[in-house]
Amino acid sequence: MNLTILGCYAATPRTFTNPTAQILEIKNRLFLIDCGEGTQVQLRKNKIKFSKINHIFISHLHGDHFFGLIGLISTFMLLGRKTDLYIHGPKGIKEIIKLQLKLSNSWPTFNLHFNELEAKESVVVFEDDKVLVRTIPLKHRIYTNGYLFEEKTETRKLNIHAVQSYEIDKCYYQNIKNGKDITLDDGRVIDNAKLSLDPPLPMRYAFCSDTVYNEAIIPLIANVDVLYHESTFLESEEKLAGKTMHSTAKEAATIALKANVKQLILGHYSTRYDNIELFKEQAITIFPNVLLADDGKSFEF
Amino acid sequence: MNLTILGCYAATPRTFTNPTAQILEIKNRLFLIDCGEGTQVQLRKNKIKFSKINHIFISHLHGDHFFGLIGLISTFMLLGRKTDLYIHGPKGIKEIIKLQLKLSNSWPTFNLHFNELEAKESVVVFEDDKVLVRTIPLKHRIYTNGYLFEEKTETRKLNIHAVQSYEIDKCYYQNIKNGKDITLDDGRVIDNAKLSLDPPLPMRYAFCSDTVYNEAIIPLIANVDVLYHESTFLESEEKLAGKTMHSTAKEAATIALKANVKQLILGHYSTRYDNIELFKEQAITIFPNVLLADDGKSFEF
Repeated sequence: MNLTILGCYAATPRTFTNPTAQILEIKNRLFLIDCGEGTQVQLRKNKIKFSKINHIFISHLHGDHFFGLIGLISTFMLLGRKTDLYIHGPKGIKEIIKLQLKLSNSWPTFNLHFNELEAKESVVVFEDDKVLVRTIPLKHRIYTNGYLFEEKTETRKLNIHAVQSYEIDKCYYQNIKNGKDITLDDGRVIDNAKLSLDPPLPMRYAFCSDTVYNEAIIPLIANVDVLYHESTFLESEEKLAGKTMHSTAKEAATIALKANVKQLILGHYSTRYDNIELFKEQAITIFPNVLLADDGKSFEF
Repeated sequence: MNLTILGCYAATPRTFTNPTAQILEIKNRLFLIDCGEGTQVQLRKNKIKFSKINHIFISHLHGDHFFGLIGLISTFMLLGRKTDLYIHGPKGIKEIIKLQLKLSNSWPTFNLHFNELEAKESVVVFEDDKVLVRTIPLKHRIYTNGYLFEEKTETRKLNIHAVQSYEIDKCYYQNIKNGKDITLDDGRVIDNAKLSLDPPLPMRYAFCSDTVYNEAIIPLIANVDVLYHESTFLESEEKLAGKTMHSTAKEAATIALKANVKQLILGHYSTRYDNIELFKEQAITIFPNVLLADDGKSFEF
């Protein structure tokens, strides 16, 4: 699982910082999460192939999370894209995109699917044989969802040496991968644990931005490998965080602690701060495993 | 008159090139012409004060000319702008902006005025005591206007030495500036030309992008000081230029020649070309005074 931060600053794009957008590579699928203004340039700078993006997940309709979407769709059109594109995001996003396509008299060369969300509870928005994505309902000034990306549990791996030593026929291999014991021709029953190995543990990534401190999300994100939680403010702006329905670094760390996540990544920093190291300093007083997102930074898990 | 090119490349923003946007400073007014994605970052890079922009002129609703507008308006809001903002552009632009403001539940802290255009002939879109702006109807795939920015003719300048030598009372100064002759107390009539000097010649700037080769614009832009005319393609792509309703460098130069302009600036280059010098090489075979726009370049006239 690889996470590339294209932008992780709040509010307005600046000369050297970008609003929210990130690329999650999971099981060879490339997902774009949020798409602030300038995301397509950030994709180019980070050498990410546009054609590999088939699903875009938008958290909410504040500009710093989606103003780059219409431009990216237009660029897909200019590049002559043929593959279907799926946009998951709050109700209204379809109207915004379609209105602009209509007024520019530009029509996609590919099928553009909108999965508009309005559910207040967690819903599955994507599922294939290897990955499942569901929403994490967040509390913000407007309707907002985080997204939980889960690898599916793989079948067990064949312990090829053991299988060969028992001279088991290949036609039983799938049964072994599915966890079944095997009865040999001589009547002996071989325990599956002797014939197979545990599959790699499925990874889970939770993206939670933007949100006020909200313990209601804890059951959904409990024990995830990586939690990206917004930390717009430092402790000194705790009241402002509550008022604007954002979180402080300490609040993000508290959620990470209570949800027992393995790794916390902080981001969505207010542009008022010059030194983002302060976010980490404050968060690690509560939760130890803290990483700081920054534009252009990649994390491998 | 100062022109700063924020972006002058066609189609899609790239790592080092930007879609159309430019700042015209004329008579101490700052006008933003077009607003492709990333314009607000280009404004920052070029150290242009956001608060000095009160009028934005959008040529047409293709994304590379206006996708940065909603982000700029949002940033004005975040900066707590109080001054009225005027958007001049094709009908539909109000619906696009208002829909996004509504869905983000964000409302301007200032009065946002839309001057929606649908006239097929040239109309005045802005006028104050020093500057007049009118549309230049262009021919493109969708409804498009260029804009003609004209300084108004100033009153004549007092020839202060002459005025003092005739001992003319100050109460007549305004009449002299307005071009009137003066009758002295002894009955002599002094010709205005002896008492005043010609004011500086009013400058005119014509912005023409995007457009196919179209001689119908010539009467409107005749004799302007500076013509910015799109040249999306080189001569080798002349047919493609016609088909996509763009111009070649030579076509832009032909318009400049026939309109007898003083200076031609080329821009809106297709991103297929690595060397924009070729645009100049081809244009100067037809018209001598050719400058090449480039992102971040400023021209003083």
